[in-house]
Amino acid sequence: MRAVRLTTWQHEPEILDIPVPEPGPGQVLVKVAGAGVCHSDLHVMDWPEGALPYELPFTLGHETAGWIEQTGPGVEGWSAGEAVAVYGPWGCGRCHRCAQGMENYCERAPEIRAAGGGLGRDGGMAEYMLLPSPRFLVPLGDLDPRTAAPLTDAGLTSYHAIKRSLHRLTPGSTALVTGIGGLGHVAVELLKALSPATVVAVDTAPGKLDLAKRLGADHALPGDQDTASQVRDLTSGRGAELVLDFVGGRQTLALAAACASVLGEVAIVGLAGGELPVGMGRLPFECSVSVPYWGSRPELMEVIALARQRRITPHVETFPLEQALEVYRRLREGELTGRAVLLPHAA
Amino acid sequence: MRAVRLTTWQHEPEILDIPVPEPGPGQVLVKVAGAGVCHSDLHVMDWPEGALPYELPFTLGHETAGWIEQTGPGVEGWSAGEAVAVYGPWGCGRCHRCAQGMENYCERAPEIRAAGGGLGRDGGMAEYMLLPSPRFLVPLGDLDPRTAAPLTDAGLTSYHAIKRSLHRLTPGSTALVTGIGGLGHVAVELLKALSPATVVAVDTAPGKLDLAKRLGADHALPGDQDTASQVRDLTSGRGAELVLDFVGGRQTLALAAACASVLGEVAIVGLAGGELPVGMGRLPFECSVSVPYWGSRPELMEVIALARQRRITPHVETFPLEQALEVYRRLREGELTGRAVLLPHAA
Amino acid sequence: MRAVRLTTWQHEPEILDIPVPEPGPGQVLVKVAGAGVCHSDLHVMDWPEGALPYELPFTLGHETAGWIEQTGPGVEGWSAGEAVAVYGPWGCGRCHRCAQGMENYCERAPEIRAAGGGLGRDGGMAEYMLLPSPRFLVPLGDLDPRTAAPLTDAGLTSYHAIKRSLHRLTPGSTALVTGIGGLGHVAVELLKALSPATVVAVDTAPGKLDLAKRLGADHALPGDQDTASQVRDLTSGRGAELVLDFVGGRQTLALAAACASVLGEVAIVGLAGGELPVGMGRLPFECSVSVPYWGSRPELMEVIALARQRRITPHVETFPLEQALEVYRRLREGELTGRAVLLPHAA
Amino acid sequence: MRAVRLTTWQHEPEILDIPVPEPGPGQVLVKVAGAGVCHSDLHVMDWPEGALPYELPFTLGHETAGWIEQTGPGVEGWSAGEAVAVYGPWGCGRCHRCAQGMENYCERAPEIRAAGGGLGRDGGMAEYMLLPSPRFLVPLGDLDPRTAAPLTDAGLTSYHAIKRSLHRLTPGSTALVTGIGGLGHVAVELLKALSPATVVAVDTAPGKLDLAKRLGADHALPGDQDTASQVRDLTSGRGAELVLDFVGGRQTLALAAACASVLGEVAIVGLAGGELPVGMGRLPFECSVSVPYWGSRPELMEVIALARQRRITPHVETFPLEQALEVYRRLREGELTGRAVLLPHAA
Repeated sequence: MRAVRLTTWQHEPEILDIPVPEPGPGQVLVKVAGAGVCHSDLHVMDWPEGALPYELPFTLGHETAGWIEQTGPGVEGWSAGEAVAVYGPWGCGRCHRCAQGMENYCERAPEIRAAGGGLGRDGGMAEYMLLPSPRFLVPLGDLDPRTAAPLTDAGLTSYHAIKRSLHRLTPGSTALVTGIGGLGHVAVELLKALSPATVVAVDTAPGKLDLAKRLGADHALPGDQDTASQVRDLTSGRGAELVLDFVGGRQTLALAAACASVLGEVAIVGLAGGELPVGMGRLPFECSVSVPYWGSRPELMEVIALARQRRITPHVETFPLEQALEVYRRLREGELTGRAVLLPHAA
Repeated sequence: MRAVRLTTWQHEPEILDIPVPEPGPGQVLVKVAGAGVCHSDLHVMDWPEGALPYELPFTLGHETAGWIEQTGPGVEGWSAGEAVAVYGPWGCGRCHRCAQGMENYCERAPEIRAAGGGLGRDGGMAEYMLLPSPRFLVPLGDLDPRTAAPLTDAGLTSYHAIKRSLHRLTPGSTALVTGIGGLGHVAVELLKALSPATVVAVDTAPGKLDLAKRLGADHALPGDQDTASQVRDLTSGRGAELVLDFVGGRQTLALAAACASVLGEVAIVGLAGGELPVGMGRLPFECSVSVPYWGSRPELMEVIALARQRRITPHVETFPLEQALEVYRRLREGELTGRAVLLPHAA
Repeated sequence: MRAVRLTTWQHEPEILDIPVPEPGPGQVLVKVAGAGVCHSDLHVMDWPEGALPYELPFTLGHETAGWIEQTGPGVEGWSAGEAVAVYGPWGCGRCHRCAQGMENYCERAPEIRAAGGGLGRDGGMAEYMLLPSPRFLVPLGDLDPRTAAPLTDAGLTSYHAIKRSLHRLTPGSTALVTGIGGLGHVAVELLKALSPATVVAVDTAPGKLDLAKRLGADHALPGDQDTASQVRDLTSGRGAELVLDFVGGRQTLALAAACASVLGEVAIVGLAGGELPVGMGRLPFECSVSVPYWGSRPELMEVIALARQRRITPHVETFPLEQALEVYRRLREGELTGRAVLLPHAA
Repeated sequence: MRAVRLTTWQHEPEILDIPVPEPGPGQVLVKVAGAGVCHSDLHVMDWPEGALPYELPFTLGHETAGWIEQTGPGVEGWSAGEAVAVYGPWGCGRCHRCAQGMENYCERAPEIRAAGGGLGRDGGMAEYMLLPSPRFLVPLGDLDPRTAAPLTDAGLTSYHAIKRSLHRLTPGSTALVTGIGGLGHVAVELLKALSPATVVAVDTAPGKLDLAKRLGADHALPGDQDTASQVRDLTSGRGAELVLDFVGGRQTLALAAACASVLGEVAIVGLAGGELPVGMGRLPFECSVSVPYWGSRPELMEVIALARQRRITPHVETFPLEQALEVYRRLREGELTGRAVLLPHAA
């Protein structure tokens, strides 16, 4: 089968022919319908050898949906042909956090030396993907697995960052979303579906602000030197109870600090490498800053429930698997809108 | 001034002339714009002497909004003319629960022998109402105080019953609202504004089901012998994570038990006198049953924030104060739709 | 191997010779060190045919600890000889609740027709026990598996009933424990380890009240007609924020209703068949009543962490497996103190 | 009466004679029993003119307990002679946060230009203190108000920083306390009273580590280059779920970052001026960093409940009011152990 493989650090991946894997005891083979192309893959490729604990080569793709092709011995309760999403972060399955479904925060992550399929182990950018356990499967119901892949990362990461702050989003509160890209545009939809907060979208690209407005943002602001004072005005001086920064750069984090409220939350989701210093006088009192990562398995089920109710509809652009390198290049150039998804079996 | 006063137990109230009160130190006089007519007043009137701890006579009306008329000595931070809602449950102000704004659950309630204005102390069905403290005032902003009164009880009671269960209303969950009257119709609006739950409204009156649909209910079911199985079908057998019973009768509570889910919540809000027996095999595991009462002061602020954003708009029918007895009669006969509000100063 | 099997409804179990099972793909064979004897087994035996969905025969014992004997193909991360507790409630493993580790509340329980090993499937009262998945294993570390078995039900059930109410147990609060038996005595220890609440133990047996005092109960009251007023006095009239009823009979539930506080919680854990009617005037406002069942897998890990720190030490009396019928008889007669544990491999 | 007054920025305070205030409508006069001497006063004095929004002169002392001397007109429910603690942060009393008792986070703080008595308004370092409202009173019961003053800041600030993270302190978790001074030693007591967490105390002074051990700390570590690896070892590599930094300097914050766990919390309470940069790779995933400030009124009640049960007993050294300047000098030199309290009416 064809697979997009990372074979050398600091190089583009290669599209190669590899054998279709056989599911052993307790394993599941998924026929891939769609594999999302995520900006974080570019970061993975760009690291020098030894920076990440992953061993090369492996197939990329950590945002995957498809159909069950074959179950290994001992796997019960799943049928061939069932449409499924793949839960991406693969933990040990037995620690306290994994037992709660939070494999994204597995306590044995340092020993495992891989974060999941497409991140150190073979991922979804191939015709078939082998899962080490059926616990990474989530049923998609009537959703089309070709376009559902982004729910598993773009959707889940946004959802998790919002869900843990829902108690802050009481009526009269404000949520600020910085960066209306693959994750940010889903965050706008999620905030409207889950909370009564006033949603303020910030981006420098007018087209992305238009998208935010269409998805329900109450305000859409071009990110410039006036943004912080505009947010203060919109919130009667209180600031935003939740700031989701999907860029994570120096400027956007400075904006976050200037806009956040007392008792608020700043979530740094974007990987642009910025830092936000926390200390007396740097931020409002008891405003929490953290870097959340992906989400839990029960949260992915909740994201899929929202998608099945059409409360969220990630904007997706599809491509044949063979165009993977071209898509990565366009992603790096910022030429993609919405989320790109590779279709290994597309007509 | 004219005032609707309860003077004798188990009799209709009387409309009498009484003096306009003078605000003493720490007190506030409110010019009443609107006073809601609540079904629970009928229960108050119907009790025999000695059943309730209240002393007669007192002015009815525990759902009030208006304008600040005059502040007593020592009251700061409030201006005459400001539009305000009156927080109805008046506690001691110094116990642990009052310190959190939950005067509805004041630890000294048994000593106080009155639940608030209109419930043992002079309430809002008069031209003016005297408040013992400015802490019972909540600013209305640009809301019209003539129609805002129902936010303080119909709105707040529904909101409180929902807010404490929001963690149960994850995507894919279901909330059942039984009784689409003065409180129930606001509950439907609130559920849609606050959660992604599927909302199922149940009533025997087709007009009330129509109202529920217009306010966003996903399903509207006539309450009959098929309702429970319909709810089981709608929820893939799981049942509803939240059941709000605004009737509280024997039949509606049996429906609640038949529809609720494992780990769910049944809130008995209506006062029709039913009971729900809890024990092994009577309800799904860990389904909690309780009788919540009114809400907290910060919650009233949140309700008003939702109303100011037009996320909720209680349906109100207004009447001159002089028609109070007629309105109570129609309420008792079930002839009112939405919430009736008396306007003491109406043109 | 020898096994205590339920072969006929409404009869005593039989001790029989059956083959040692072989672990298939994804399965684990545990050498049983100890199997707790639980009062609920008596209820299981007493049902007429058809009342429970379980198929006969099966080996009893739903409270088990031991050592890993052999892992089936595809099981990774576990080693033979490791001391483990067995998580008792076995769900589908793929629903929303199972994904959070709450297999006690599996959404597919009605289809599965068995609650776990010893409850419809072969349990721990045998020399070896076969687990369908390694996810039911929790490491015991340095705890002796011969006496650790009660942590998995007596410990876990008590812990779960307390954990969900910890937010109610603020300083100055009170927790009431009714019935200081196999679960109740652990509940007293847990409350002291987890909260600053004043702990009140109630039982009719003086020896059990002595045990409660030794385990840290602040007050120990013989259950009689004065108990409710004593609790009201101890709490300045407020009542107890949490009532754990490990009896669940008519009288103890009436006591619960008389002792509980506004905003409190009554957990009906005991199976004596009583019911508590909830409705206006029957209980303090917003006091929640429910029937919790067992606990989650991450909670079992937390219980084991407490035991490893010697914060809890369940009182255990051990017996050879061959005495199982005698032990059940003594349990039924109320002649056991603490928890009885069968040792299939005892010297 | 004698009062310790700040009269000039960047100077020592002066002890002056000023008139005893008269309580107006809604006000309360407290006879001061004890006034705590807090390190943050030194920061206040050290600011240049214009840095803080406070107007000079004012009486210092924001940690106060005493007896009610006289209530102004309109104040009900309080009696002369009653022993009380003074809740220190004074907000507007009408915003959403004040309505929940969180006047420490009053939304109108910028307009009010004073944080409370002793912080812009006359505080407790005088024979009498005037409170603008009885809502700042909390009954002390049988506690001696001469030594109870530190509960209102040292106690409350520590309590608040812990309470918001109690859900993280499940069995098996670890809490790290850096700086065992006036606040830190209470934090150790509080952690043992409120949670099953393993408590690790860090300080450079051996005497303070001894105190921590006496108060129940499970481990006491001298802060040096090995501390972080020691904490990693104690926690099997996971790190501490809660880090309370009562120093807040550059080194202690670096230690916090090195010791905190995934999903953990770092609370910067000390005012030494350090900063902790948050960003990808700087801290474990979803570890939250914030600067909490003081606590809420209901939380102060909870602290007093713990003190009344002797679960916490702040270590206090008392001095006559006339020695205030000497005490401030010794505080600045680090020569005080435990908390210093001035007694204006001491024999």
